[in-house]
Amino acid sequence: MFYIIGLGLSDEKDITLRGLEAIKRSTRVYLEAYTSILMVEKDRLEALYERPLILADREMVETQSDEILARADTEDISLLVVGDPFGATTHTDILLRARALKIPTRVIHNASIMNAIGACGLQLYNFGQTVSLVFFTDTWKPDSFYDRVKENVDLGMHTLVLLDIKVKEQSEENLARGRKIYEPPRYMSIPTAVAQLIETEKTRNEGILSPNSTLAIALSRVGGGEQECIVAGTLKELLNRPAESYGQPLHSLVIVGKRLHHLEVSYAEEFAVNQKSWRDTARDAYGCALE
Amino acid sequence: MFYIIGLGLSDEKDITLRGLEAIKRSTRVYLEAYTSILMVEKDRLEALYERPLILADREMVETQSDEILARADTEDISLLVVGDPFGATTHTDILLRARALKIPTRVIHNASIMNAIGACGLQLYNFGQTVSLVFFTDTWKPDSFYDRVKENVDLGMHTLVLLDIKVKEQSEENLARGRKIYEPPRYMSIPTAVAQLIETEKTRNEGILSPNSTLAIALSRVGGGEQECIVAGTLKELLNRPAESYGQPLHSLVIVGKRLHHLEVSYAEEFAVNQKSWRDTARDAYGCALE
Repeated sequence: MFYIIGLGLSDEKDITLRGLEAIKRSTRVYLEAYTSILMVEKDRLEALYERPLILADREMVETQSDEILARADTEDISLLVVGDPFGATTHTDILLRARALKIPTRVIHNASIMNAIGACGLQLYNFGQTVSLVFFTDTWKPDSFYDRVKENVDLGMHTLVLLDIKVKEQSEENLARGRKIYEPPRYMSIPTAVAQLIETEKTRNEGILSPNSTLAIALSRVGGGEQECIVAGTLKELLNRPAESYGQPLHSLVIVGKRLHHLEVSYAEEFAVNQKSWRDTARDAYGCALE
Repeated sequence: MFYIIGLGLSDEKDITLRGLEAIKRSTRVYLEAYTSILMVEKDRLEALYERPLILADREMVETQSDEILARADTEDISLLVVGDPFGATTHTDILLRARALKIPTRVIHNASIMNAIGACGLQLYNFGQTVSLVFFTDTWKPDSFYDRVKENVDLGMHTLVLLDIKVKEQSEENLARGRKIYEPPRYMSIPTAVAQLIETEKTRNEGILSPNSTLAIALSRVGGGEQECIVAGTLKELLNRPAESYGQPLHSLVIVGKRLHHLEVSYAEEFAVNQKSWRDTARDAYGCALE
């Protein structure tokens, strides 16, 4: 059996009992270390799971899937992924590959940012499509996300914005010389994300985002207990705080839609940079007054 | 500390290690038995968790939250919920109540249908808003869901449709006589859901759903291993199969949107009632041809 097992969102204790049992039955256990980022060191996982973990990076999962799947027809093999297995298309690919090889597969689900985002107090059924925001460079500012945000905004839906991560990047020099030396990972910060949103609004100018009257909520380490950090405010309020004030990466951002409900305003108020400004903006820009 | 702990989607082994630790520290453990439905008997949960569970139904969580929260300022108290804690607004209510009482709270996340739905092969970021479908009666056929499905369909997004559950219903006679005698739980079946969708399309007639050219995917017991059942086809194909062929409740239904990707078609093909019809409809009605 080939298992893909979700590890959840914060550390080694977020695995399910079902997932742990599958790991303990497995003869090889791969740990995928790229579609998202672990919040915990590999050795802590190994200590708890009582299994050595084989690191599987993007190259390996995409190009060496047959190696990962070897003998999975007769043995149990597990691939561990952060969040839920269906958060990334790569996992669909390897499941399709297993199916083609007639290897039985099983997915063990866990929390992912796609549902844990409810922690900010906004209701999941009021979310539209999810978008990804990549790092802008001086010459490359891909803005197709803006069209999707606009679709959500036009309907009054909230938008979950997933922020870019750069792992295993090579410098131009190393790339040119063919040296497999990688830069340290980079995570997009909340102020960078908000600055890119505002910059894109200036360029596209379709009036869907406003620094002073669009509300947003920043989240990091959702479900991570003490490490969890949730901050709510106008785009401008979020822009003007230091990146460090948003906790450790990964970060996500929610753009609040106009179908905002007063219960959502109440719940998220606890996270507001400025509670008065949060309430006032909800009332004036969203027509959502608290009693 | 007041914990709300997600149990995940299928049985007692879907709890996380973090959740199990919190339960074992708790002096009282409540099991919420209404926003969704457990796939497992209470005594199996109690055996694994080594704690007696106090059943908390809707009335109790909504009207007796202070009883549930009693002494949570000095002891650990847990409320267990199926799926993820943020799947239902009631949990937001009780967290707000705890906050008002200055009781520290912590949410322990888990998989919910909102992310596990990825098991059908459709990508999560291509889903629009989620809708709920309630049982129609002869005199009451609420169709506001249709407007929301239309919003998704117009954008080409997939729609997750959550199907109605009736628990703790009273017959008219028992209600009239004030007798707290409840009918057995009822779960909406896939054929009933599809029939209601088609009926609503006939009434509203805005051309967003078609028996022969709208594709949909039915899911039950996602993540439940052998019990998991996923069936894909046109609305008509799904309508014409017996309710029992869709596995045990709870059921969910996905209406496939036009932004369908060929990788999604390939993946879901395994679940098709008729693979040729699945491919042909994807090609002809969705413009999504497989190589």
